[in-house]
Amino acid sequence: MPKAVVSRLSLYLRELQALVRDDNKTISSTKLGRLLGLTDTQVRKDFACFGQFGYPGIGYRCEELIGEIRRILGTDRIWPAAMVGCGNLGQALLGYRGFQSQGFSVQAAFDIAPDIVGSNFCGLKVDHLDSLPAVVAEKGIQLAILAVPADAAIEVASILVKSGVSGVLNFAPVTLNLPKSVSVVGVDLAMELEQLAFAVVKKGEK
Amino acid sequence: MPKAVVSRLSLYLRELQALVRDDNKTISSTKLGRLLGLTDTQVRKDFACFGQFGYPGIGYRCEELIGEIRRILGTDRIWPAAMVGCGNLGQALLGYRGFQSQGFSVQAAFDIAPDIVGSNFCGLKVDHLDSLPAVVAEKGIQLAILAVPADAAIEVASILVKSGVSGVLNFAPVTLNLPKSVSVVGVDLAMELEQLAFAVVKKGEK
Repeated sequence: MPKAVVSRLSLYLRELQALVRDDNKTISSTKLGRLLGLTDTQVRKDFACFGQFGYPGIGYRCEELIGEIRRILGTDRIWPAAMVGCGNLGQALLGYRGFQSQGFSVQAAFDIAPDIVGSNFCGLKVDHLDSLPAVVAEKGIQLAILAVPADAAIEVASILVKSGVSGVLNFAPVTLNLPKSVSVVGVDLAMELEQLAFAVVKKGEK
Repeated sequence: MPKAVVSRLSLYLRELQALVRDDNKTISSTKLGRLLGLTDTQVRKDFACFGQFGYPGIGYRCEELIGEIRRILGTDRIWPAAMVGCGNLGQALLGYRGFQSQGFSVQAAFDIAPDIVGSNFCGLKVDHLDSLPAVVAEKGIQLAILAVPADAAIEVASILVKSGVSGVLNFAPVTLNLPKSVSVVGVDLAMELEQLAFAVVKKGEK
């Protein structure tokens, strides 16, 4: 399945959740597409990858489609996660309410700086990195959010691998080459700005 | 040009910059691909979209390819940018050194909270949102990084549009429908975690 389709599932999910908050029960592929800047054909094609979710003359039932998308993405369950690195970015991410609402539960936080270890952020006490393997095992943590400096990322990622986490969301601007058993999604914020710059430049050329 | 290719340009750029830091002068498509988990065919095909950059028997000259990619992405110039919203996330982003090194210069910061306006973060004084149009005009700001709460994002984005910015990097979990003249790239951190969850689930099914 193309990565782009999986990305769009997250977009659909967010839009459907907003529709439900505004008391919408159903939505047509045309309207859903318009909200996201996609054609209705694209919307139908994306969902057709996974099954038949629409109803003739009705469109999609929002709640049902939300449930289906969460099932497909694997976020119909709670994923215990850990924040690894609690500097500025890690602290901001700990305060980010979006994770919890989408099925992610940050249950542990780690750092090595003496003034950060032992502190409390958003109700979570920061443990020393040395205790990570034990805490991951004890709490059944599957995902790690890696928000450490670039020069520490590879070493810390190898600790995560040894501790048995299944996935790493990497905020450090470093490519992690981890064993195949561990999934990595990299978030490089400068890269996102580059994509924006490219879009602006292309628009200017038109 | 497919969006996925543009995303990969950022990945190549980052890897090439790391290679130069390690004193590499040239790199083959095979080695560059291996570093990023791509086939050499994919690497060559991606660059062929833009021109002929490789040398037979040598591969790519790292510095030259970095220059070409920056030119294509539009980051061979400095982009004056503004941080809009200086809560936890905005403050973390202001401390993020990656922006500057990739050609983005955050030259203004805005908020509305009385305890934040007037504060200094990473050498930048936070102005009140009311002064945004004047500051954007004065400093020639083209890009805005939107790190305000979800319920304020649409209103603040419309202020940005009226002020004449060309691009918005949106961290609020809201889809912004802005005029076609303004580019938007959305960063939804929960979406990134969803993509990771999906990758972990798929791996478990194999």
